[in-house]
Amino acid sequence: MKIAFLGPHASFTQLAATQLFPDGELLPQANILDCFNAVDTGEAEKAVVPLENSIEGTVSMTLDYLYKTPSIKIEAEGVMPIAHHLMIHPENNIEDIDKIYSHPQALAQSFHFLDTTYKETARQDFSSTAAAAKYVSENKDLKIAAVANQFAANLYGLKIVNRNIQDFEQNHTRFIVISKNQTKYENDHLEVLGEKSGMLINLPEDHPGGLHQVLSVFAWRKMNLSKIESRTLKTGLGNYFFFINVAGKWKNILHGNALLELQSINAEVDFLGNYKEFLLES
Amino acid sequence: MKIAFLGPHASFTQLAATQLFPDGELLPQANILDCFNAVDTGEAEKAVVPLENSIEGTVSMTLDYLYKTPSIKIEAEGVMPIAHHLMIHPENNIEDIDKIYSHPQALAQSFHFLDTTYKETARQDFSSTAAAAKYVSENKDLKIAAVANQFAANLYGLKIVNRNIQDFEQNHTRFIVISKNQTKYENDHLEVLGEKSGMLINLPEDHPGGLHQVLSVFAWRKMNLSKIESRTLKTGLGNYFFFINVAGKWKNILHGNALLELQSINAEVDFLGNYKEFLLES
Repeated sequence: MKIAFLGPHASFTQLAATQLFPDGELLPQANILDCFNAVDTGEAEKAVVPLENSIEGTVSMTLDYLYKTPSIKIEAEGVMPIAHHLMIHPENNIEDIDKIYSHPQALAQSFHFLDTTYKETARQDFSSTAAAAKYVSENKDLKIAAVANQFAANLYGLKIVNRNIQDFEQNHTRFIVISKNQTKYENDHLEVLGEKSGMLINLPEDHPGGLHQVLSVFAWRKMNLSKIESRTLKTGLGNYFFFINVAGKWKNILHGNALLELQSINAEVDFLGNYKEFLLES
Repeated sequence: MKIAFLGPHASFTQLAATQLFPDGELLPQANILDCFNAVDTGEAEKAVVPLENSIEGTVSMTLDYLYKTPSIKIEAEGVMPIAHHLMIHPENNIEDIDKIYSHPQALAQSFHFLDTTYKETARQDFSSTAAAAKYVSENKDLKIAAVANQFAANLYGLKIVNRNIQDFEQNHTRFIVISKNQTKYENDHLEVLGEKSGMLINLPEDHPGGLHQVLSVFAWRKMNLSKIESRTLKTGLGNYFFFINVAGKWKNILHGNALLELQSINAEVDFLGNYKEFLLES
């Protein structure tokens, strides 16, 4: 099965895709739009893209393309703890390193560690953590290290000298599996954290309390929202749509009625699916 | 006055900063954390960082650092239409170009134009639109073009061959001015689009309808929300804070009471400021 993902090779998204689709043929894409296009044209059956808190890609684009492409739905979500490691060429010594390469956000997320342990070592921005790791592997003679993930260390044969150097233990990135056919995604090897529904809600006009009215539909039914994000429509400033996650299985008459009531107040609802949330390793 | 901004030179954020602070001494920073640190340590008096829909930086980091750094508040917001232009070295001809360089998201945002007008021309990812423009200016002999903004074209002396090649006319990026002293930001040269308040709200526990209860406080007072975004706390999965924008001037007893009521239901509120929204040019 062909699975598009936001590249490059050894990106966090590939790390997610390999766990979600251990037997898939993974096709790296340059950006999030290309992932959606690959699914839309049938070039790939599914795609793995970041939904939240990624250092790769602008995840607001994922929401915008979900809105723009109603035929594409969500099959599953993966949550990965972000773990950054400091790695060098195996024939080098960490004492000799005079520059650390990585994506600027990965350097920022490891700020505290780098600023205490390698205060005097210069840092160099790179387009991705994976590209930085590749560059270190190809340039033994430069005295450089990279901040990247375990997968990149394995792929490029680098030696990890400091593990888990990120400032926050509990920083997570969320990925979603998107497809057009929305088959039921199952995976017996990954831990299931829960179940949720995703939907896009478009309010017909921007009026005070409109979002509150939408949320009332969920609130009295005790349907818990686990994510909400407003996005400006491309039709102009001041018009919005919302991405909402409702926790739990979507199964009974309350859920169906909630959608009917939303439509009765002229909200447009694109139900993206009821799907499982899996814990991924980093 | 020293103004930190998310670089590199000729980034969209610099384009915003030059309009917001025409007389400021602009200090480019490698990432959003460095912008916050510059303000926190006093190295810069203010900083300009992206808040929404940026192709530079991960804007969720802006929300996280606002949460992590309660001393830093918001003074102003700038909204800039995203305009991408195709540009070449002035001594080259567009007919000879065989590769187009840019940030992957800028290439994605110009997908439709590039795919129709320059279908056969290869594309190459670069770490930023500004860096791509600089590379084109320094490599006359390579037959390359860049997708970047007007500011980069001016700075690096490039010739614009196609203007406004972005797929959506109405795509905007939002920037905020942050500082510790939160002086009243004024600018007579920029058009004022409106006024708004920003706040971070932390619900003490994750219970169904909790967000709905918070929004009720605003809804019956007819205070309109113009942005809402949930962010996972770094303490673990399932705990959230919310960034909320309330439209309009924050002035009367209704507003004060809204905050008091939020506190009375044990919500922690960090009021980030009441500030103007300015229209920027791209």
